[in-house]
Amino acid sequence: MEKGYVQVYTGNGKGKTTAAIGLSARAAGAGLKVSFIQFMKGQYTSELESFKKLGIEFYQGGRPEFIIGGPKKEDIEAAEKTLELAKEKVTSGKYDVVVLDEVNVAIYLGLIKEEEVLKLIKEKSSSTELILTGRYATENVMKMADLVTEMKEIKHYFSAGVQERIGIEK
Amino acid sequence: MEKGYVQVYTGNGKGKTTAAIGLSARAAGAGLKVSFIQFMKGQYTSELESFKKLGIEFYQGGRPEFIIGGPKKEDIEAAEKTLELAKEKVTSGKYDVVVLDEVNVAIYLGLIKEEEVLKLIKEKSSSTELILTGRYATENVMKMADLVTEMKEIKHYFSAGVQERIGIEK
Repeated sequence: MEKGYVQVYTGNGKGKTTAAIGLSARAAGAGLKVSFIQFMKGQYTSELESFKKLGIEFYQGGRPEFIIGGPKKEDIEAAEKTLELAKEKVTSGKYDVVVLDEVNVAIYLGLIKEEEVLKLIKEKSSSTELILTGRYATENVMKMADLVTEMKEIKHYFSAGVQERIGIEK
Repeated sequence: MEKGYVQVYTGNGKGKTTAAIGLSARAAGAGLKVSFIQFMKGQYTSELESFKKLGIEFYQGGRPEFIIGGPKKEDIEAAEKTLELAKEKVTSGKYDVVVLDEVNVAIYLGLIKEEEVLKLIKEKSSSTELILTGRYATENVMKMADLVTEMKEIKHYFSAGVQERIGIEK
């Protein structure tokens, strides 16, 4: 692309990761080259099959289990490795769109340093659109972004006891 | 699906339509049957190519031009036709996911009646997940929804004069 910007999707509402998936699907539809990198996730998700069909690169940098009760050493190592890969993709100039899914939460949980992510944003290829998702985006990350959307939960059926469903939530 | 819910994505921020696209791509990845219906849009959008590859049904119920200076008779007719099609899909029980993109704006502009949409929600097949997007979701629509997310604009580069880019915004 001629010029890529930095987009942030944050907030406590549903739709952050799905917006990044949608953005990737649209970009792939236009023949753009997309890399979708997930921090902290190792669970199977249905979008994987669609990514394959659309030629979207996908990397999951986490364990199949969620982080409960504080991150372990292996969680930090996995997140650092994911960040390294992200840096490579974001600075290479070979991608039109790079998504760093849940990167904000990785910072929040202390798996990676905020300053490392700020550095990555600064050093990104000017032709790459960079998408950062996850709750708890920091002030500094938002300051460096060109577009920030807060997904705000107004009403959520999970509070009514709905389980995650394949193809909808995962 | 066993049980489908009603999701609303509204607000002035970016990510409403893209979240619905992402949700559709994820659902298609899980082998679910998806119909994506757009009110008021007739412009080419890049996600079309991806929808084809993923087997997602797509219908655009609008003219190639945006509605400027109040809707014309043909805009109202197009929206009514789109609503008829939507009713068919939503009540048929043949779809796991039906997206009514920009339906909230179609109500807001007076192209279709709010009560018609409320009726559609009430009559939807219990096995269909229904997604309604667009700014200005009405109180009644939100009341009938199981999940409501407001996309809130915190910062937007468009105010810095960025044009819509193929594969990113359209």
